[in-house]
Formats: sequence, C-alpha cells, structure tokens
Amino acid sequence: MKKLINKPENALDEMLEGMTKAYPTYLRRLDQTDVLVRQDLSADKVGVVSGGGSGHEPAHCGYIGKGMLDAAVAGAIFTSPTPDQIYEAIKAVDRGKGVLLVIKNYSGDVMNFDMAKEMAEMEGIQVASVVVNDDVAVENSTFTAGRRGIAGTVLVHKIAGAAAERGWDLDKVKETAEKVIANERSMGMALSPCTVPAAGKPNFSLAEDEIEIGIGIHGEPGTHREKLVSADAITQELFDRILADYPLKSGDEVAVMVNGLASTPLMELYIINKKVHELLEGLGVTVHQTFVGEYMTALEMAGMSITILKLDSDLKMLLDDTADTPALKVIGTK
Amino acid sequence: MKKLINKPENALDEMLEGMTKAYPTYLRRLDQTDVLVRQDLSADKVGVVSGGGSGHEPAHCGYIGKGMLDAAVAGAIFTSPTPDQIYEAIKAVDRGKGVLLVIKNYSGDVMNFDMAKEMAEMEGIQVASVVVNDDVAVENSTFTAGRRGIAGTVLVHKIAGAAAERGWDLDKVKETAEKVIANERSMGMALSPCTVPAAGKPNFSLAEDEIEIGIGIHGEPGTHREKLVSADAITQELFDRILADYPLKSGDEVAVMVNGLASTPLMELYIINKKVHELLEGLGVTVHQTFVGEYMTALEMAGMSITILKLDSDLKMLLDDTADTPALKVIGTK
Repeated sequence: MKKLINKPENALDEMLEGMTKAYPTYLRRLDQTDVLVRQDLSADKVGVVSGGGSGHEPAHCGYIGKGMLDAAVAGAIFTSPTPDQIYEAIKAVDRGKGVLLVIKNYSGDVMNFDMAKEMAEMEGIQVASVVVNDDVAVENSTFTAGRRGIAGTVLVHKIAGAAAERGWDLDKVKETAEKVIANERSMGMALSPCTVPAAGKPNFSLAEDEIEIGIGIHGEPGTHREKLVSADAITQELFDRILADYPLKSGDEVAVMVNGLASTPLMELYIINKKVHELLEGLGVTVHQTFVGEYMTALEMAGMSITILKLDSDLKMLLDDTADTPALKVIGTK
Repeated sequence: MKKLINKPENALDEMLEGMTKAYPTYLRRLDQTDVLVRQDLSADKVGVVSGGGSGHEPAHCGYIGKGMLDAAVAGAIFTSPTPDQIYEAIKAVDRGKGVLLVIKNYSGDVMNFDMAKEMAEMEGIQVASVVVNDDVAVENSTFTAGRRGIAGTVLVHKIAGAAAERGWDLDKVKETAEKVIANERSMGMALSPCTVPAAGKPNFSLAEDEIEIGIGIHGEPGTHREKLVSADAITQELFDRILADYPLKSGDEVAVMVNGLASTPLMELYIINKKVHELLEGLGVTVHQTFVGEYMTALEMAGMSITILKLDSDLKMLLDDTADTPALKVIGTK
C-alpha cells in the first residue's frame, strides 16, 4: 500500500501540524500534546470534548469550532488517546460551566476518558460523559464491549455542540447528547481493507468480488462476507438491519448520513443516498437533513456506512444551528 | 475494481438524483437534462455556469449555491456535456445580466461550451467565457490543446461566484475570473489509477512502488514515473514545478489548495499541507486561506494536486465572501 507520508512514526504529529497550519483561525495545538483546541473559546458555555484514535479524519479535530467541539484529542492511529492528554483537553476548555466528553464505545477509549474525567473531577471540574454506540452490526467485537461507535458520533458532536453554544447547562447538554445516541443507528460495509502505516500491510483481505457487511471503522469483523451485489441491494440490506433495531413509522422525521470510509467516490455515495431516500419515502418518513461525504473515515478503506437519526423539534433546531468548523459548516440563524 | 453502483449506464442519472435528494434546498434538476440549477436564483445578478465530464465530484454540481455557481452541467463520466444541455443551463440562469461560463481546458469542453454560447447569443443572451488551464504539468496532453484545467477551477468558481453575488457586471466578473486564472498554478501526482464504470478496468497501471508525476484528473499521462519517495520530497517536487512557472516573492499572499483525487486519506493531505506551508514560509510568502480536501476528484484514483493562487486585495475579499453550497461553505460577512 502506497502512502503519502514521511516516517510512519511522525505521521500523527505532522498531520496535526498540517491541520493547524490549514486552519489557524479555528485551531491551536496545546504545547507538548496531541490536543487541538478551539481558538475562539467562548467564555461562558459548557465545553464539549471528543477524541479517539487517529485515522478517522476529519474526525475528530476537524469538528472543532463554533457549534461543535471545543477540543479534540488525537490518539495514535487506531489507538485510544492517553488519560493525561484527555485531562489537558478538559482543563483547556473548562470555563466553570463543566465539560461534556463524547466517547466512542471502544474499551480503551471508555477507560481512558473515564480516568481523565476522574482526574479533572479531583481538580474540581464538573465533567459529564456520553458513550456513542450507534453501530447495529455486532455486539462485543474486537476492541469493544457492546456496540461500536461509528459515524453517528459526528451527529452527537453537531447537536451537543449546538446545545452548549446556546448556553444550555451541563445536565441539559448531556441529556441532549443521550437523546441523539438513543435515537440513532448506523450500519456499514467495506469493499477493501486499510493499512496502518506502522504495520505496512492491510488489516484484512477481501476477494475481488467480495464485500464485508457490518465492518467497523478499524477493519474489525462484521456480520458476514458476501458477493458484491448492486448498490441498491447493499443499501436495502443495511437499511433493513437499521430498521430492525430501530423501527420508523409514517410521519417520522429523520436526519440521514451516508458516510464514506475514504476511497469510495462521492458519486457512489450519492447513488446510495438516492436509495436511502427512496426507502424512507416508501415508509412515509420525511428527511429533514442529509449529510453525504467523508465524516468518519478508516484510513484508505473503501466502503461506507448509513446512519439514521430520528428527530424531534429540539434536535431539528440544534441540527440547523450554525456550525463553523473546518470539516462541517452549517449556515444557520443561530 | 469493486464499485457501489447499479448499472454503469445509470450511474450518472442516479448520482444526480442522489444529489438532488440530499440538497433539495440548494439544487433542482432541469427536466430531461443532466443540468442542476440553484434553487434560490437571484433575480438580479450575472449567472455563473460550469460543468464538464462527471467523475470529479463534488465538481461541479456540488458548488451550486450562494456565492458560487448558478448551474452546472454534468456530462457522462470523463466526457464533455453536450451543447444543448449547456444551452439549457445558460437559459435557466440568465436574468438579463448575462452569464459567465467557466470551462476547464479540454478540447471537447471548450468546443461544446462555445457552441452553447453561440446558441444562447443567437437568442439574445449575453454570454462570456473563461478557460481554466492551471495545470503546469504538460502541454497538449490527451484530450487537451494547451494546459489542462484541474483543481484550480474550484477557486475560479469561488471568486467569480462571489463577484457575481456582489452584483458586479459581466465584464467585471469575467475580468476577475481571468485574474484568478492568470494568478494560479497547479500540479498533481497519482499513486493508483481509476476505473470508468462502463470500461470496467483501470485506465492505466502503476507498479507497487511507483507513482506518476503530473498526471491529469482523467489518468492522462504526466511528465514521468518515479519510485515512491517521501511526502515531503513529492511536495517539494510539485512545488518547485509550480514556482518555476509562476515565481513568488517575499511579501506575496496566496491561497493554497491541497486537493485529494479520491482515495488518498485526509491524514496524508494534511501532511502534504504542512510541507507546502513550510516551503511558502521559507520564501516569506503569507498564506491567506487554505483548502485541504477533495474538491476535484478522479473517480477513485489515489493521489493529489497542489494549487497556489496569488492574491490581491480584491481576490482576498472575494475569497472570504460567504459561499453556501453543498461542497464548499465559507461563513463570511458578505
């Protein structure tokens, strides 16, 4: 696998430098850390912090800015960030209103964010946390007890970030994030593996006519392998799995995310999106907002995931609020 | 090559449907065409129209919206749109102030946009056109007489679109677009080929340790092949080629675009961006704005291009103006 990097051991550091140079008005890097912090930190709001292993760009540092995250902690590739770095992020963004941690459900992330939370609480900082587990594919996969957190995490960033930006208190921001997690489900599939730079070889292999359904964002096993079929048939399969877990009914309103894992062209994601909308229309479900693009990637893996979030009036309002971050911008009225 | 499509012959139509469903407040499709038009067409401004072969998504339909394009015409994959469709786009957006066509320099595009321009002029519509030829790699490559138009085209959309949105007249919008074209240069490279769905096989091949420098966005030949070296060395090589053609001096201000061709992870593009910024800093050149992402792709090709645009005060102002499109948003004061 050919990569545009220098030394594998420097890739994370160089990436964070490259991000900071690209977006100096949005991001600054905390000295001696892999923590990026929002430049225009608001003086009077709940802080929102996320993070996780790298290799999922633009997640999570790309979502730092007005209406989303105040800081993100970048672990080594596919590896949880350490508690001390998460603790630095919490300290950097706390403004006396407390801090919400948005954690993807991987054992290492949950453990390290929890330790950082305890460290911050010992310093008198009020910290709450939520764990995102939107992937309906499998329970207790590699790295995870329970369901994995995947692309739906970005919708938690968007909505919890908007709630914090509106000046809501920590309890209410946490409650809102938990509502998103309760109301969203995702399911993904892959056409090809990815290669961690330091490993130098693909993390699994698939035959030329084979896909894997239910795969995670690190190449963890999914539910099964099957022959490549049409985009419509694959979309139907993922959609049915999502709805089996979280049924929708006529009159419901949802947000849709069709997330590319990296190598899948936007053309193909739009074709998937067409089918998702048709399936929802068939049920009498209205789509309030659609996101098609690369929001939570897996290095250079080809594949995609579908996320469906059921909305109520509060979630719609917060989804439509302004977000001004490098990777996701919404031009709203608030 | 595995693709998430249905029938190859339906890919373009289904993609356009998927885009329209994703962004119904931004886009509508003209009946019986592959033309997408801005929903909130302004009553009193110059229209800006672009287009070209498909397979470069989000270009060009993703750039339809406030501050960028009013319509885009999608040809078959890697194939120029037909004159009649371009003509429909021109008619749909003309509001009596005239229409600017932004054309990438490929023989088919130039010929077909010119024919459409003549058809519209016969109907009394005032039409101007500019031809983008930012790629310094080669002259007279496959499909092209002269230099090719690549990722720099998106900066023409941004700036000409902002000029039109400000109410500038057709001559001044055209003059501004020409200034962007005169002041920008790009150069790209690839690590892997891409596969046109209907062809079913890759359009060229590269060995496992080989890259091609100066390649175009359809896999047209570049200047040479070489062994894969470090990201820094590749960046230096492309940068030197750009500066050999358009020298910069201390005190200059520029915009930078590091454009992914599709399969190259954002992590790698940020590593490239770090080096581009360091090289510019070394020359005493200031970066006013940076774009890192997939702006002008080549189906699932791995690789990237670097674009550098020298700015003056007008170009900076227009670059910072609000753009509200599916694929590029700038939250400005105008």
